[in-house]
Amino acid sequence: MVDPRTSIIAERLKNVHDVIAVSGGKGGVGKSLIASTLALLLAENNRVGLFDLDFTSPSTNLILGIKDARPVEDKGIIPPKVHGLRYMSIVYYSGDYAAPLRGVDISNALIELLAITRWENLDYLILDMPPGISDATLDLIRLIKKIRFVIMTTPSQLAFETIRKLTDLLTAQNIQIIGIIENMKTDKDQTIKSQIRKLGLDYLGQIPYDPQIESALGNPSRLLNTEVAQKTKQIARKIQQFRQ
Amino acid sequence: MVDPRTSIIAERLKNVHDVIAVSGGKGGVGKSLIASTLALLLAENNRVGLFDLDFTSPSTNLILGIKDARPVEDKGIIPPKVHGLRYMSIVYYSGDYAAPLRGVDISNALIELLAITRWENLDYLILDMPPGISDATLDLIRLIKKIRFVIMTTPSQLAFETIRKLTDLLTAQNIQIIGIIENMKTDKDQTIKSQIRKLGLDYLGQIPYDPQIESALGNPSRLLNTEVAQKTKQIARKIQQFRQ
Repeated sequence: MVDPRTSIIAERLKNVHDVIAVSGGKGGVGKSLIASTLALLLAENNRVGLFDLDFTSPSTNLILGIKDARPVEDKGIIPPKVHGLRYMSIVYYSGDYAAPLRGVDISNALIELLAITRWENLDYLILDMPPGISDATLDLIRLIKKIRFVIMTTPSQLAFETIRKLTDLLTAQNIQIIGIIENMKTDKDQTIKSQIRKLGLDYLGQIPYDPQIESALGNPSRLLNTEVAQKTKQIARKIQQFRQ
Repeated sequence: MVDPRTSIIAERLKNVHDVIAVSGGKGGVGKSLIASTLALLLAENNRVGLFDLDFTSPSTNLILGIKDARPVEDKGIIPPKVHGLRYMSIVYYSGDYAAPLRGVDISNALIELLAITRWENLDYLILDMPPGISDATLDLIRLIKKIRFVIMTTPSQLAFETIRKLTDLLTAQNIQIIGIIENMKTDKDQTIKSQIRKLGLDYLGQIPYDPQIESALGNPSRLLNTEVAQKTKQIARKIQQFRQ
């Protein structure tokens, strides 16, 4: 049986040229930071949307300093324009309180949100995904036909082990993986790079560990002046080259 | 209706004096590293078990370098003794492959594992919890009556925002929170410490960011010689003082 929501979501996304899911095998690898920075950078010369689907810790709103902008209801929901991009987040609907929802409920909430959000014509829709392989990840893969993945890891073997599971799952389902980003580098070690290539995946680049990034949170122009943003810019170029 | 598994699990844990859940609001905060180090340190003068329930990225086996030790089946499952402690992990049953299980299945697998594992007399059973608030977290809280929490954060506001949700949930259910650990410190900033105290929670201490910890992974004696372990030792002392 075909899930009727598949066609509703396809209709909602028909004017979105490219859907890029920024994901990671586990939390704490900098997924939200890089998804936000990537969206800001691509928005400099593209029409871009950013959709925070990470119900486990929605944080793009904190990273981008989004406070007052709210979606508007009009035959669905229209994401506000903030810092040059269209912005939508699960945080608008989960609020600041503890939401002890069960897996199926969370997944249904995300799907509902995808089904009601009206994106304008977009070159890129960046999704800040829930970390790892959850019910929600499985449903999002199934429901968004043109989804392609950028996967984040850190230099730690602990993080790398978890992306293997995620890439296995995606590959088995013929989902395109644009490549892997190694975040929080503190040295020039090439172990992760060679392990990624052994998996037959593209190494999109590395981003340095920068404890000073904390002071740029909530301030997009400061964020764009960090070394993290400089490195992400090179990765944004690659993503545009690989454009479908 | 009372879940019959509650009494089975209570029976299995009747000789365990203290169950300490090491948790965090999100992944990547060092939960598995500190749970492993804490277990090794407490095992120096206590009978200790370590149970890795983090199905999203089981990693205590990698941190402790556990390769050949396997549980033995005998009217249930007996955890092997490794590095002076009894060790059990979801990894023994999930294997190295992608396990795209749905929330309910994962939670059932964890509960099944709790119900069949036979712990000897233990002073402390350390649980490496799944990150944040998942189906599994909710079930574990419900099923393990004497559970108490140690919660990890990093100095980042992004991590701190997520522990608020977790502590709200635990407090509402009258679950004891031993305190909060601030991990990956790179400076002397006291923001998180004062925010934790404002929540009325105990600040157990801070642990420095140490990129060199990577080279101690898989080697417990090297791990115990790191600054991370030195700081964790102070925290272990506090936990023993707070003993029930």
